[in-house]
Amino acid sequence: MSAAIPTDDRGLLLGDGLFETILFKAGRPVLWDAHLRRLAGACAVMGLAEPDRERLAEAAAMALAASGLDRARAAVRLSWTAGAGGRGLERPPKPEPRLIAAAAASSRPESAAVLALSAIRRNESSPASRLKTLSYLDNVLARRDARAAGADEALMLNSRGELAGCAAANLFWLADSRLFTPALECGVLDGIMRAQVMAVAPALGLETVEIRAGVRALDGADAVFITNSLIGLRQAMRLDGRDLRSDGRVGALAAALDAVI
Amino acid sequence: MSAAIPTDDRGLLLGDGLFETILFKAGRPVLWDAHLRRLAGACAVMGLAEPDRERLAEAAAMALAASGLDRARAAVRLSWTAGAGGRGLERPPKPEPRLIAAAAASSRPESAAVLALSAIRRNESSPASRLKTLSYLDNVLARRDARAAGADEALMLNSRGELAGCAAANLFWLADSRLFTPALECGVLDGIMRAQVMAVAPALGLETVEIRAGVRALDGADAVFITNSLIGLRQAMRLDGRDLRSDGRVGALAAALDAVI
Repeated sequence: MSAAIPTDDRGLLLGDGLFETILFKAGRPVLWDAHLRRLAGACAVMGLAEPDRERLAEAAAMALAASGLDRARAAVRLSWTAGAGGRGLERPPKPEPRLIAAAAASSRPESAAVLALSAIRRNESSPASRLKTLSYLDNVLARRDARAAGADEALMLNSRGELAGCAAANLFWLADSRLFTPALECGVLDGIMRAQVMAVAPALGLETVEIRAGVRALDGADAVFITNSLIGLRQAMRLDGRDLRSDGRVGALAAALDAVI
Repeated sequence: MSAAIPTDDRGLLLGDGLFETILFKAGRPVLWDAHLRRLAGACAVMGLAEPDRERLAEAAAMALAASGLDRARAAVRLSWTAGAGGRGLERPPKPEPRLIAAAAASSRPESAAVLALSAIRRNESSPASRLKTLSYLDNVLARRDARAAGADEALMLNSRGELAGCAAANLFWLADSRLFTPALECGVLDGIMRAQVMAVAPALGLETVEIRAGVRALDGADAVFITNSLIGLRQAMRLDGRDLRSDGRVGALAAALDAVI
């Protein structure tokens, strides 16, 4: 947790590390425990020691205070790199992870999202496709292409051609009075807000189905929306120039989410 | 080119950047121009400004001198990050890339390589699969799995199940008096040493075929070998516990390469 890190850090050299982005409202974290649980699980997959929870809380608080955002809506990013050294791809025998914390102002988008289908697929064969890692270049490039196409966000399929999600958000759609979202095995981040949507849906009479489905599944959808910890729920209004339908139940889901978070 | 970088660097936060690893012998780079050409081409794909060639040469020389390896066999790694800032995945309007140079001792492996087939596939849909990027986590994890299986290096297929290469090396095999290597479209780094092998092969009466082939293609091979800029050519002796054949022409290729580099 410093303003500079040594250039032999594996997070920098190889993208060997993890991160979490946590919403803070007036200095208080939203769904903190869920973020820390996910980070701990990701450390196990990556073979990295878990960070100490108190240390994470302190680092987040210090970053918030330093940014002057402790009374605002802020995104705190905690990065957990694999630390220094090793020979080429291989880590040292006992990696010593490094913590970096930073806070930035975070506002919610005011309009519905315009999506563009990315040519870059999610690589569901890699554990990294289900984690927030420091190797996020595919998402950077997918987003760049989407912006160049006049869209806000990239819709990504996986290598089997199944819907996976967006460059920085999970995907949902309403159809046949059910809520659908790509299954984690499709190369999908186990999103904190994704889980929240699934938790509030039953109270609105909506069953959620985690599914392997192609992009054509969106053709008949009553509504499409995307989620992440910072934007919450954001309706999608267009995909590759084609209008998507909207449905009042999306607003009801958003309101239910706001009540929880 | 410093010992520390700011923690808002996109190379660190998102793996947004490139690198080259260049062999130096007694202070002199091997195939320097080819490395710089590849880096420039990768910058174009990534949408990053190219580094100045003189600046790269100076940085490499300073890193070598600082390491005390300017009379030894050394690997100089030049990293070119997308620089500071931007909002989440998106770069600032005019990214200012950052250069990092480091030198380390480099010795050639003395034995033939033991390979293990990785469960992690190369994502040929991503431009990053053909570049040396700072998002190298899949290669880190593939190598880790290979080492855990008692092997030296991971053999990787792409998402279509075609041979792609190794975690940190290109792949070749000899069969039917021809030399085969996965085509770049398979999600393969355009290796400097790969190109050198293809350049020296005709003098040994070997035609090189860039191919899309499954892992079964190796079953009937007369020999399998891997290449990169630091190891040169290294024969592979075993794949997933099965012995691979050897062939005198691999030694002849290695000798021809040594004469060139």
